[in-house]
Amino acid sequence: MATRKMILDLDTGIDDAMAIAYAVAALDVDLIGIIASYGNVLTPLSAQNSLKILELLGHSDVPVYLGESHSSTTTHFDVMPISAQIHGKNGIGEVPLPTPKREPETESAVDFLIQSAHSYGKDLTVVPTGPLTNLAKALKLAPQIQDEIGNVTLMGGALTVPGNVSPVAEANINQDPHAADQVFESHLNITMVGLDVTLRTLLTKNETAQWRSLKTEAGKKFADIVDYYIDVYKITSPHLHGCALHDPLAVGVALDPSLVSTLDLNMFVDTTKEMWGRTIGDPARLTDKNPNVTVALTVDQDKYLARFMDYLTKLFAEN
Amino acid sequence: MATRKMILDLDTGIDDAMAIAYAVAALDVDLIGIIASYGNVLTPLSAQNSLKILELLGHSDVPVYLGESHSSTTTHFDVMPISAQIHGKNGIGEVPLPTPKREPETESAVDFLIQSAHSYGKDLTVVPTGPLTNLAKALKLAPQIQDEIGNVTLMGGALTVPGNVSPVAEANINQDPHAADQVFESHLNITMVGLDVTLRTLLTKNETAQWRSLKTEAGKKFADIVDYYIDVYKITSPHLHGCALHDPLAVGVALDPSLVSTLDLNMFVDTTKEMWGRTIGDPARLTDKNPNVTVALTVDQDKYLARFMDYLTKLFAEN
Repeated sequence: MATRKMILDLDTGIDDAMAIAYAVAALDVDLIGIIASYGNVLTPLSAQNSLKILELLGHSDVPVYLGESHSSTTTHFDVMPISAQIHGKNGIGEVPLPTPKREPETESAVDFLIQSAHSYGKDLTVVPTGPLTNLAKALKLAPQIQDEIGNVTLMGGALTVPGNVSPVAEANINQDPHAADQVFESHLNITMVGLDVTLRTLLTKNETAQWRSLKTEAGKKFADIVDYYIDVYKITSPHLHGCALHDPLAVGVALDPSLVSTLDLNMFVDTTKEMWGRTIGDPARLTDKNPNVTVALTVDQDKYLARFMDYLTKLFAEN
Repeated sequence: MATRKMILDLDTGIDDAMAIAYAVAALDVDLIGIIASYGNVLTPLSAQNSLKILELLGHSDVPVYLGESHSSTTTHFDVMPISAQIHGKNGIGEVPLPTPKREPETESAVDFLIQSAHSYGKDLTVVPTGPLTNLAKALKLAPQIQDEIGNVTLMGGALTVPGNVSPVAEANINQDPHAADQVFESHLNITMVGLDVTLRTLLTKNETAQWRSLKTEAGKKFADIVDYYIDVYKITSPHLHGCALHDPLAVGVALDPSLVSTLDLNMFVDTTKEMWGRTIGDPARLTDKNPNVTVALTVDQDKYLARFMDYLTKLFAEN
């Protein structure tokens, strides 16, 4: 099977943990590294969580790189209370996992991203599921990577539905709208997997029970971690009747764009106070040819959920 | 050719005048009446303008009905200064047209709408290109019409681009968001032709010059009226390099949905102060089957413009 090089840029996070599992389980991916971002947790904890999840899944061969610790327009970052509520203070549902044997790399995440773009070019897919701070910084330091990287499939934004931290802003974009705007207005070939589709792909305890019944360490721990997330969704989003598969859906769409229907659109990210973090079409470039952002609008949720469960259950059965 | 019954609900207005011309010129339409709404002008002037345009086009057989004179939540309406700037104080680019021989009907527009829904059912297409006040009132008085009317193709709203009277609100919806929400959340089969597509269909003085060169009364008057509109667009929206064909595009899409690509979505209209008039997907109904709103996202602008010019030029040549 043809494989592609993939870098995940995660603020790990429960759904980030599921994104790691999906990427590790998929046979058509060569996961060359994970970048740790701030967001659901602080950057160092994001790195620790990614290392822990990789070890739990028998994949400590994947290196983890420390990314930026705060947004491009601030000097400090504190985890939002809602993030700590949704993911737990430890980021993975208060589930204890062993201290990982492997350490984060000493090379910076931004350098790793730039070097990977130079090395792999169109074969490289970058999947950011947190703020776009690392990618924007890489673009600033090495603008040529916007024409090198094959595709950026990001979890973030909301075009046809309201945001989840404000009526217009989705959480990842909200953390650093200036960085997001630099990414959206670059030449990068972007696929936006936003709330438009991630709120349509839902997981329930019917699925996590299947993992638990495997009686493996990975199966049990992932069931515990995701059950925490599902329980919080019952409080914060009771109308959904499940938890949203935000981050793993971005990995799924990166590997198989046919899962979603899309709109090609030139977009910008609003950084005004009133519309902070809004991802929306750019009226000034509405009739330009070849828009650079492909926005996912609908998703074949049954097909995706079946694949998600197939991938993760097989992986958890072996670990 | 199979024809369908159509009612236009207009705040006439320059692009409303073009919508009348398009509907009158199309061979597959039986235009059974025009409703006069407030918006670009006051309701009585809207009626006068529609009667004048019909007479100019040799179609004073079409009756005009007086609709509501203000929104569902106010007791009075004043034309916004920007509307007077865009359409002229007389609504038709300060171009003088003879006082029409025909008067508005004595039956109210809302009664006419309800009776037409009862009479024609699925054969009836309603095309509102102003506020949705009349339609919402008809729904309130006769809720069964939501299951009778074949289709409502409205010019209004903005889903994937910013609004034109606020970052989130398009002008027609902005006039009466409560009415619009009642329409959007009804069972009506709705096609939304919003700024997403109308800002992509542009007319320039190259086209109006063709009408002027016909040397007919209709050709000359329409060239004068639309040139006024194009001149204002040079000031208010210089990046467009033309004027938007808002209202006539709604008529075009009502007759030929294949002109646009679409998204089916359950929507609501936000009536909070901060998001006043925003047309957006309803997160609580995102995974419901059979959404009732079909939103136009892209348009084959070359095909539409060719048809628009074909229809209007032939019509003007004969009048």
